[in-house]
Amino acid sequence: MRRNAGDVSTTPQTHCDSKVTFVDTNIGQLTLPVVSRGEQESLDNFLVSVQIDEEVAKLLQLKAQLGGEDGKHQFVLKTPKGTRDYNPKQMAIREKVFNTIISCFKRHGAETIDTPVFELKETLTGKYGEDSKLIYDLKDQGGELLSLRYDLTVPFARYLAMNKITNIKRYHIAKVYRRDNPAMTRGRYREFYQCDFDIAGQYDAMIPDAECLKIVHEILSELQLGEFCIKVNDRRILDGMFAVCGVPDEKFRTICSTVDKLDKMSWEDVKKEMVNEKGLSEEAADQIGEYVSMRGGMDLAERLLQDQKMCQNKQACAGLSDIKLLFSYLQLFQVTDKVVFDLSLARGLDYYTGVIYEAVLTQAEESAGVGSVAGGGRYDGLVGMFDPKGRKVPCVGVSIGIERIFSIMEQKAEASAEKVRTTEVQVMVASAQKNLLEERLRLVTELWSAGIKAEVMYKKNPKLLSQLQHCEEGGVPLVAILGEQELKDGVVKLRVVSTREEVDISRADLIAEIKRRTSEA
Amino acid sequence: MRRNAGDVSTTPQTHCDSKVTFVDTNIGQLTLPVVSRGEQESLDNFLVSVQIDEEVAKLLQLKAQLGGEDGKHQFVLKTPKGTRDYNPKQMAIREKVFNTIISCFKRHGAETIDTPVFELKETLTGKYGEDSKLIYDLKDQGGELLSLRYDLTVPFARYLAMNKITNIKRYHIAKVYRRDNPAMTRGRYREFYQCDFDIAGQYDAMIPDAECLKIVHEILSELQLGEFCIKVNDRRILDGMFAVCGVPDEKFRTICSTVDKLDKMSWEDVKKEMVNEKGLSEEAADQIGEYVSMRGGMDLAERLLQDQKMCQNKQACAGLSDIKLLFSYLQLFQVTDKVVFDLSLARGLDYYTGVIYEAVLTQAEESAGVGSVAGGGRYDGLVGMFDPKGRKVPCVGVSIGIERIFSIMEQKAEASAEKVRTTEVQVMVASAQKNLLEERLRLVTELWSAGIKAEVMYKKNPKLLSQLQHCEEGGVPLVAILGEQELKDGVVKLRVVSTREEVDISRADLIAEIKRRTSEA
Repeated sequence: MRRNAGDVSTTPQTHCDSKVTFVDTNIGQLTLPVVSRGEQESLDNFLVSVQIDEEVAKLLQLKAQLGGEDGKHQFVLKTPKGTRDYNPKQMAIREKVFNTIISCFKRHGAETIDTPVFELKETLTGKYGEDSKLIYDLKDQGGELLSLRYDLTVPFARYLAMNKITNIKRYHIAKVYRRDNPAMTRGRYREFYQCDFDIAGQYDAMIPDAECLKIVHEILSELQLGEFCIKVNDRRILDGMFAVCGVPDEKFRTICSTVDKLDKMSWEDVKKEMVNEKGLSEEAADQIGEYVSMRGGMDLAERLLQDQKMCQNKQACAGLSDIKLLFSYLQLFQVTDKVVFDLSLARGLDYYTGVIYEAVLTQAEESAGVGSVAGGGRYDGLVGMFDPKGRKVPCVGVSIGIERIFSIMEQKAEASAEKVRTTEVQVMVASAQKNLLEERLRLVTELWSAGIKAEVMYKKNPKLLSQLQHCEEGGVPLVAILGEQELKDGVVKLRVVSTREEVDISRADLIAEIKRRTSEA
Repeated sequence: MRRNAGDVSTTPQTHCDSKVTFVDTNIGQLTLPVVSRGEQESLDNFLVSVQIDEEVAKLLQLKAQLGGEDGKHQFVLKTPKGTRDYNPKQMAIREKVFNTIISCFKRHGAETIDTPVFELKETLTGKYGEDSKLIYDLKDQGGELLSLRYDLTVPFARYLAMNKITNIKRYHIAKVYRRDNPAMTRGRYREFYQCDFDIAGQYDAMIPDAECLKIVHEILSELQLGEFCIKVNDRRILDGMFAVCGVPDEKFRTICSTVDKLDKMSWEDVKKEMVNEKGLSEEAADQIGEYVSMRGGMDLAERLLQDQKMCQNKQACAGLSDIKLLFSYLQLFQVTDKVVFDLSLARGLDYYTGVIYEAVLTQAEESAGVGSVAGGGRYDGLVGMFDPKGRKVPCVGVSIGIERIFSIMEQKAEASAEKVRTTEVQVMVASAQKNLLEERLRLVTELWSAGIKAEVMYKKNPKLLSQLQHCEEGGVPLVAILGEQELKDGVVKLRVVSTREEVDISRADLIAEIKRRTSEA
């Protein structure tokens, strides 16, 4: 997922109304003039601002530890900046989203792997360009120098090289870490999940690439996040375009990262940055401007293959032919309705070598560009960077930007009347009278043995009302009520929480009856 | 999970036969005389040894980076010490184990939460006694001082206090981090999973405690790990026992940690440590010796409630009454066959306040004491440590030692003839002739739309044999074969991989036929 540097974090931590001191790490930031320059500020300025911000936070934290007015030590009761806990409701939503995504990955025949949360520092070195500054390092406590993983792609490449694996189709869902400026309301955190699907191996052109786009299409459709669009481009087309427009070789990367801002800046501002900050000639910038305004489908690829200027460049031609081939496969996969060949797409990461893509939600209420929910591309050189003999393993993959999807799903759940259940309890074993704890424990044991999800209140003599209330609140559909009379008659009173209907069921039939009623639900 | 300090790590990293340099971090350790003192060495000595070990590793790593004989930079291609990747086969086993455990937690009505992988350093301070030395700190890069979580219990307590939650039943499955001495063949890592189930809330005595033991019983039975035994004791009984045996108050904790070694040291050695190293009187040690040799069930609790000496101590009496009550609930839960009241059980962590327990595999081939696969207890004071007003939230919980269980399951899978499948692919779409890529892509799209797990080879003209081979190796049960003739006839040749039987199925019936055949499997 692309991150933009200039965002100001806006979510305060959850506050307590007690003596516990909350250090709102945003205070420092909001009062620092350097941040008010907004989107235009360069990454370096941004990092200085983060540093100052964090020094302020540290001092406030130290002050809090020195104690309040009563001289007592006070805790700073919070999660680290840019991170959050997931409460049970959020976890229920997360589980649902993960299940949809994992089902799709499995439907496409992927295996899964896992790697450690930290890597040797040098494993990450030289892979992320300017963004390397955002890597979390571990303290040198003796032993190896370690860093938290920044994405799942570099650990994957390290895994392939280390185990000499030359082809695999795998998914990996795990947390990654970036010392970025958090914007938590928009689902941007310092600790966040990535859901990656990658295909490694020497195959015929564009077939695995097309499957990655098919997967993005399936997942975004199934999650029902609203209208979306998948932009496609190719690193070789970008480089070829820069070459034919007269950008000097050594400026390709920096001009590319300026083009990358087109989804949140106007062309005028992008041009200004190219000419004024990066020293590009005005003519070159204008020629780039013409190209990056183009978008279309297979037709655009065909048109550019006829373009006098573009055709001079071998790289660009190869890229355009591949885009054309890609679209032919996308037609067979029935996903061309959502895919756009967009020459302004220029993903930031250094390691891409061919096709790149990014999915955006087009109905997102947020400002342009932050609707991005998936991205990826081809990186044929990365595994070779880890191989002592430089042997290459071509790879293509996609990463689903799950945190943003969680945010949207949470807002949807919030807005919906339907209650999110956080447990799967089918029945509560309750009692109407006192001194029936033993009977309740005996019955719940029977139910557990039969695989039924059941619970009892951990009280000797709970009130019937509080047992019923617990079920109403938690969405538990059934209550199995025991009383002196029921015990004498060898029955259980089964109550349907939603309708308050009650019926006596013999002990022998109880399990079957609960299963019957909860499988209907 | 308890860790013992003296173990020497024995697993070398996976080696490559290439120029990539593997720094075997065990070399330094094995040649250091300090480690040869074995189990008797104190934690401090152990830590010095780890430090030396790690300095050696770092120097070797630096040397490797300076380049080999050809002067080229060489990568150290490995995961950090004490960590590992999970390959697809290991992940398939891990998924199975997690599913069993999560099903059990859900059957008992638990919700789930998640917390960040790191916490503010001060959140962890003062919670782990001597073991605090094993906490991983993050580098001070400006901002807050952070540490990787050491367990899931302290973050849980922080979560409860921060959100003012006074009752919850939750599970949490996540990785935790300890700079301990790894012993990877025995499933002991620096990064490892914990599967925690905890019940927080003010309830009647021993009911939630009994459910935790019920859960351990269910999980260990379902995983079929062989015979096991769950040892139970109570922190108050231990403290009372120390008091009546004449241990001075200030020595309770250190004597307790010596008693904790009884599962891997003889009583003679434990006594020697108490008397010679910890300065306890011989009489006191002998009195302790009598008690810690006792094990039994409810009967033992009853007998000790009559014990003249024990009865003098209020704490011990309260603990013994609770053990008696606990056993009465365990009888109702039908788990007393595996639970033993064992006065030698003394778990290390500082925060336990009442019942403690530990499950061990009794058939484990490994030396005594390392068969421990679950542990936990009551910690009524921990949440209060985070609450500014010290409000307590009583808690009891259990942690399943999943890495050791993975090791056992992997060995079992290795030994078994049955192949572990790493994907769930139901059918491969193959072609018998050339130039049928488009037809294959069209058909696989149809299957995906119908929710069938399917794949194609990413080649324009793959050989039929290599397509079939792929299915044999991956355990794919069906192949849908397309050829010119089949296309003309509007059929697909469906091949059953295991029997090599082939049958023509009309395109219209194909999806139903695949579903029918794979739901049987």
